[in-house]
Amino acid sequence: MIRAGIIGATGYAGGELVRLLLGHSDTEIRWFGSKSYIDQKYAQVYRNMFELVEDICLDDNLTELASQVDVIFTATPQGYLASILTEEILNQVKIIDLSADYRIKDVSIYEAWYQIEHKSPQFLKEAVYGLCEVNRETIRSARLVANPGCYTTCSILTAYPLVKEGLIDPNSLIIDAKSGVSGAGRGAKVPNLFCEVNENIKAYGVASHRHTPEIEEQLGYAAGRPVTVSFTPHLIPMNRGILATEYATLVKPVSYSQVKAIYDQYYADEKFIRVLDEGVCPETRWVEGSNFVDINFKIDERTGRIVLMGALDNLVKGAAGQAVQNMNLLFGKPETEGLAFAPIFP
Amino acid sequence: MIRAGIIGATGYAGGELVRLLLGHSDTEIRWFGSKSYIDQKYAQVYRNMFELVEDICLDDNLTELASQVDVIFTATPQGYLASILTEEILNQVKIIDLSADYRIKDVSIYEAWYQIEHKSPQFLKEAVYGLCEVNRETIRSARLVANPGCYTTCSILTAYPLVKEGLIDPNSLIIDAKSGVSGAGRGAKVPNLFCEVNENIKAYGVASHRHTPEIEEQLGYAAGRPVTVSFTPHLIPMNRGILATEYATLVKPVSYSQVKAIYDQYYADEKFIRVLDEGVCPETRWVEGSNFVDINFKIDERTGRIVLMGALDNLVKGAAGQAVQNMNLLFGKPETEGLAFAPIFP
Amino acid sequence: MIRAGIIGATGYAGGELVRLLLGHSDTEIRWFGSKSYIDQKYAQVYRNMFELVEDICLDDNLTELASQVDVIFTATPQGYLASILTEEILNQVKIIDLSADYRIKDVSIYEAWYQIEHKSPQFLKEAVYGLCEVNRETIRSARLVANPGCYTTCSILTAYPLVKEGLIDPNSLIIDAKSGVSGAGRGAKVPNLFCEVNENIKAYGVASHRHTPEIEEQLGYAAGRPVTVSFTPHLIPMNRGILATEYATLVKPVSYSQVKAIYDQYYADEKFIRVLDEGVCPETRWVEGSNFVDINFKIDERTGRIVLMGALDNLVKGAAGQAVQNMNLLFGKPETEGLAFAPIFP
Amino acid sequence: MIRAGIIGATGYAGGELVRLLLGHSDTEIRWFGSKSYIDQKYAQVYRNMFELVEDICLDDNLTELASQVDVIFTATPQGYLASILTEEILNQVKIIDLSADYRIKDVSIYEAWYQIEHKSPQFLKEAVYGLCEVNRETIRSARLVANPGCYTTCSILTAYPLVKEGLIDPNSLIIDAKSGVSGAGRGAKVPNLFCEVNENIKAYGVASHRHTPEIEEQLGYAAGRPVTVSFTPHLIPMNRGILATEYATLVKPVSYSQVKAIYDQYYADEKFIRVLDEGVCPETRWVEGSNFVDINFKIDERTGRIVLMGALDNLVKGAAGQAVQNMNLLFGKPETEGLAFAPIFP
Repeated sequence: MIRAGIIGATGYAGGELVRLLLGHSDTEIRWFGSKSYIDQKYAQVYRNMFELVEDICLDDNLTELASQVDVIFTATPQGYLASILTEEILNQVKIIDLSADYRIKDVSIYEAWYQIEHKSPQFLKEAVYGLCEVNRETIRSARLVANPGCYTTCSILTAYPLVKEGLIDPNSLIIDAKSGVSGAGRGAKVPNLFCEVNENIKAYGVASHRHTPEIEEQLGYAAGRPVTVSFTPHLIPMNRGILATEYATLVKPVSYSQVKAIYDQYYADEKFIRVLDEGVCPETRWVEGSNFVDINFKIDERTGRIVLMGALDNLVKGAAGQAVQNMNLLFGKPETEGLAFAPIFP
Repeated sequence: MIRAGIIGATGYAGGELVRLLLGHSDTEIRWFGSKSYIDQKYAQVYRNMFELVEDICLDDNLTELASQVDVIFTATPQGYLASILTEEILNQVKIIDLSADYRIKDVSIYEAWYQIEHKSPQFLKEAVYGLCEVNRETIRSARLVANPGCYTTCSILTAYPLVKEGLIDPNSLIIDAKSGVSGAGRGAKVPNLFCEVNENIKAYGVASHRHTPEIEEQLGYAAGRPVTVSFTPHLIPMNRGILATEYATLVKPVSYSQVKAIYDQYYADEKFIRVLDEGVCPETRWVEGSNFVDINFKIDERTGRIVLMGALDNLVKGAAGQAVQNMNLLFGKPETEGLAFAPIFP
Repeated sequence: MIRAGIIGATGYAGGELVRLLLGHSDTEIRWFGSKSYIDQKYAQVYRNMFELVEDICLDDNLTELASQVDVIFTATPQGYLASILTEEILNQVKIIDLSADYRIKDVSIYEAWYQIEHKSPQFLKEAVYGLCEVNRETIRSARLVANPGCYTTCSILTAYPLVKEGLIDPNSLIIDAKSGVSGAGRGAKVPNLFCEVNENIKAYGVASHRHTPEIEEQLGYAAGRPVTVSFTPHLIPMNRGILATEYATLVKPVSYSQVKAIYDQYYADEKFIRVLDEGVCPETRWVEGSNFVDINFKIDERTGRIVLMGALDNLVKGAAGQAVQNMNLLFGKPETEGLAFAPIFP
Repeated sequence: MIRAGIIGATGYAGGELVRLLLGHSDTEIRWFGSKSYIDQKYAQVYRNMFELVEDICLDDNLTELASQVDVIFTATPQGYLASILTEEILNQVKIIDLSADYRIKDVSIYEAWYQIEHKSPQFLKEAVYGLCEVNRETIRSARLVANPGCYTTCSILTAYPLVKEGLIDPNSLIIDAKSGVSGAGRGAKVPNLFCEVNENIKAYGVASHRHTPEIEEQLGYAAGRPVTVSFTPHLIPMNRGILATEYATLVKPVSYSQVKAIYDQYYADEKFIRVLDEGVCPETRWVEGSNFVDINFKIDERTGRIVLMGALDNLVKGAAGQAVQNMNLLFGKPETEGLAFAPIFP
C-alpha cells in the first residue's frame, strides 16, 4: 500500500487527486494538507466526499509529512515547494510537484516568466519532467517529478511526433488553446465569478503566459534545437477541458497516411493517447473525467500548413491524473492503475 | 461473468449503462441495441468510448438477445417492452426495464397517464418495483424489475421514512422538482437545443407529469392508504442532476433530532443514501456521476411544515446506476459492485 | 432632464441602472457612486460602457450628492441607507432605495430577519413600497420609495389578484423560487465562482430567507389579515431570471375562465405584466433584459390546488427596471419611458 | 416610415431583426415570412414578442412581398435567394441578403465552397458587400446588399487596417475563431442539443469552412493582391458572441503606438468599432446584445508576430444589427438609428 500525502488538497487539482486516489487499489491517503481549511473536515470542503473521507485538513507541513508517507503530491502555488524542499526530504520520500517549480531547467527563464526568485535551483537538474509518454523510463527512478502543466501537456503531446520527426517547422508553431474555468483555481476572485465567465469568451496572458517557455523547452528537446512558439490561452464557460488548436507550416508536402503513420509510431501503444479516425475533431466532452488525450490533424494544402488538435481534461491528464500516472511509474505499478475508467458523458 | 444486453444503448441512459458496466468487474456487454444507429460502431455514436468499445450497434431484437445473455436492460420508449415481452423471454433471462411499462400496478392508471394501451398487463403483478432501498428482498428473486423513474426515485426516497412513520400528512405533499437536460433524452427537438435551454428555467407538465402516479403509488404503500400529491418538474440548464424540494405539513410538532432519528433508522446503513449534516442543503454537484442520493430536511415552525430536499444524478441513481444496483441484487453480487466511486467535482 | 445619482453603481443592479438610464430619453446620470472603485473610470469596471460612459467613480457621499441631483438610487447593502438618511436629504431629493431598509413597516420584523438594528425607523411610515402595479398612486407623491426585492416582486405579483379576491387560502401558499446568479451580487465569494455554481442546483435560506416577511406583509395587505407563507429560493446556473412556482389551496372549485378573468381585471391594462395564453408556462428566457413579468396558472382538480407561475428578469423588473419605473412615476413621465424594449433572445 | 419585410423571420437572425426593428423609430415590419411556421402567430414562435407582435407568419413569397414593402431582409438558406431573385424585384425594392448568395464575386469560388449551383450570377457584379465601415459609400446607392457573415465581419474588421497599410504579411494570417451556438441556427439537430454542446469545445470545418473565401476576397481587396488565410471556427457553450484571435507576421518591427495610430486612423470615428485601451483583451460579454465590435492587439517581439483580437455579437453586428445598419445607409437614416443602445451585462 502506497502511503500518500497531499499538500494543497483543497484546491481543484487537489480535490481531483483525492477522487482518483480513492479509486486506486493500492494507495492510501494519509494527509490532507490545506492552508485555508486547517482543522475542518475535508468532506465539509468538498461535500462530494461526505461519508467517503472522514479526515480532517492538516496544515501543509512538508517535513513532518515526509516521515509518514511514501509519496507527496504538492498542488501548491508557484515558489512554495522550491522554498521548503531539502535534500533530507528527498531522501525520505518521492515528490510529485504539480506546481511549475521544477519544470524549467534554466532558472533564469523560470525567474523571468514567473517573476519570483527560485529558492532551490540545486534540484532542477535531477527533477524529471513528468510527461509520462515522453519521459517514461527516467521517471521510474526519479526522486522529484515535475508534473507538467495542463496547457503544456495538451500542447506538447499534440505536436510532439511531428516536431520530433522534423515534419513541421517548429518556429512556425502557433498554439491557440482554450480551457475550462477549473484551471483558474478555487480562489475567490471577481473575474472567476459565474456571471463574469458565463456567456463569455476571452483570451488572456497574450504573448506572456507562463506555460510558453515550458512548451518551448520540451519541443526544443524534440526538435534538437531552441524553439520559439506563439501561445494564447482562452477562458471557456465550462468546468473542465482543454482544447489546443495548433498551426504549423509543413516542411514538405505530406499525405494523410504519412502523418497518421508518424502519430501511430509514437502513440499506437499508448493507453492514454487516442489518435482519432480521419476527419474526427477532438472534443473535450469525449475525454471529460478521464486521463485520455484525444488528438487529430488536418492537412491544409491551400496554405501549406497542418492544423493539429488535442483535447484533454485539465484536472485529470492535465494535473491529477498525470500525477497518479507518474506515481504508478515511480512505484512500479501498472501505469493505468486507478485511471482505467471511461470518460463521462454528458 | 454476467452477460448483459442493452436495448436502447444509444440514448443517454443507455450510454450511462455502458459506462457503468465497463467498470463492473463481473459483467460483459454482449449486445449494444439501437434503433437509430444499426450497423454503426458504438464508439462513433459516443466517442468517449473510442478504443474502449469496439462493438457495432445491433437492432433491438429482444427474442434473439434473450438466448445470448443473462440480463437485458431495456432503455426504450414507453410501451415498447410491453408490446414484445413474452413468458418465454422471461423464462430465459432477467429483465431490468428502464421504461415505465411495469412500474404502475393499476393498468388503468398507466393507460390514463401515458395515453397508450398496455399490451402485456399480465406481467404487471409479478414485476418488482426496483427501488432497491425499499424493495431489496423482493428484487433478489424477480424475473422482471421495473427500474424507477429519475424524478420518482428522488421524490420517494426523500419523503419515504416520514410518510412511513406517519410524521407528515402525505396528502399535503408538494414536490417541486428540478432536472438537468439529459433527462429529456437525445432526440433532436427544438425545445432541447442549447440556445433554447441555456439561460432559462421553466416548469413543464404542470399537474400532469407521468411520474406523479408512480410517486403516489409508492408513497401510498408507505402510508398504507391512497395518497395524492402535487408534483411539478422544471428544466434546468445543466447536463445532469435532479433536486426535489418537498413541502409537507407535520402531523405534530417534532424536533430536529426526532426527524433525524427516523431518517437514520431507515438509511443509516444504506451505502447510496447520505443524510447530510444539520443545516446542509443537498446540491446536485455533490452527487454528479455517482449513485448517491443526498437528503436533508428543515423544520419550519412558523408554518408547521417541513421542507425536504433530495439530490441525485438522474442518469445514475435515477436510471443506469440503479439498474446496475438491481442487477447486482438479481445476481447475488455485492450491491455496490461497479458503483463504488466518488462523485466528480467540479 | 432628470438629474440622477447612483450610490452603489458598480454592483450588478447598479450596472443595470446605468444601462437603463442611458437609454432613458429624459435622464442624465450625474454621479456614479462606488465604495470599491473610487477614482477609477466606470467603463473600466464595466467595459460594456467603454466609449459610452466617460465618468469616474465617486465615493458614496449621499449628502453632497443630494444637492446636485433630483433623484438618488441607492443600490447598497442592507442598513447603509438607514444609517445615513436624514430629513434634510429627503427635503432636497427623491430617493429610490433598492435595499431592504424601508420595505418592511414593522421595525421589529426587519430587525429580526435582517439581524441589524434599524437606524432611522422614523422614515418607515412615509416610505412607499414601490411595487408600481399595486401602489401606483401613492408612489407618485412619495419622497422615499422602497424598491421591492427581486424574489418578492415576482412572488407577490404572481399571487396578488387571487389573494386579493379571496380565491385561495393565503396561508396555504408555498413559493418555490429559482434565481439566476446575478441576484447574489458581484462580491468575490467561493460559492459564487463559476465552477461552484455551474452544473448545479441548490436551495438556500430554507425557511429563513429575508424576502419572506416582505412577501407576507404585502400579501397580508391584499388579504386584509396577516399571512404566513413558505418561501424557498434556489440558485440556478444562469445569469439572469427568476421563476416563482407557487402552490395554493383553492377556497372553492373554479374554472379556468373564472381565474383568467380575475387576472385580466387586475393586469389587462398593465404594460409590464403579461398573463400568458392558456397552457403556456412562463420561462425566464422570454423576459430576459426586459421589464416584463410573465404570469400563468394551472388548476389542479385532483389536489384542489392551483399552481401559479411568474417569471421576470431579476435585474430589470426585479431591481433596476422597477426603479426606473418608480422614477417615471415620481417625475410624471410616461411609465414605460426607457423601458419599452423587447426581451432579448436567445 | 420604412416598410420592411423579412423572409426567414423565425430563425435566430430573423428573430433578432424583429427585435431590432421594433426598436427602430422609423420602420414598420409588414411581413413575417417563415417556411416552418406559416399561419402561426409570430409571438407563439418567439414568446418574448408576446403582446409586442400580433402578426401571423406568412409564407416566403418574395414577389408578392416586393410590391408591399420598401426593403426585404432575406435570412434564408444558401441558394434560396439566388434561385428566385429577378430584375423586376430589384426594380421595386431594396434587398438586404443575410445569406451568402451575393457575397463572393467569383461564382466559381462560391460554387466550389458551397457545393451548389448559383442560379443568378448576373446580379453578383452589382451586389454590394455590406460591410458598412469599409463600403459605406457604395452601400448607400445599392439595390442589393450582401450582408456579411458573422465570422467574416469579425475577422475582417479586426485585421483590415493592418492589411490595408501593409503592416502584416496577409498570407501569414491565421484566424482562430470561436462562436456561440446561436450561429448554428434553430434547426433541430442532435449536435446542437444542450447536452451535446454544454461543457464542451470543438473545432469544426477545419480548413474547409465557407467563410474562408469571403475573408480572403475582402482582405485581398485591402492588400491589393490575392490572399490565402487559415481559418478555423470553434463552437463555444454560450448563446451569443464571436471572438476572433488572429496571428500574423509583422513585415517590420513596429511599436504599440504606431499600430494604435493605424487603427485610430481607420476606426476613431466609427461608432460601432471600439479599439480598446492598451492591454485590454476583447471579451464577448462586453458587446452582447449590441452592434459593437471590440478590437485590440498585442505585439509579440519574441516571435515577430502580432496577435489581433476582435469580439462581436454574432446576431447583431454579425447579422441583424449590421443589416439594420445597412438599411439606415440605404434609406439615408442616421447610421446608428435603432442600434444606439448599450451592451447588456451580465
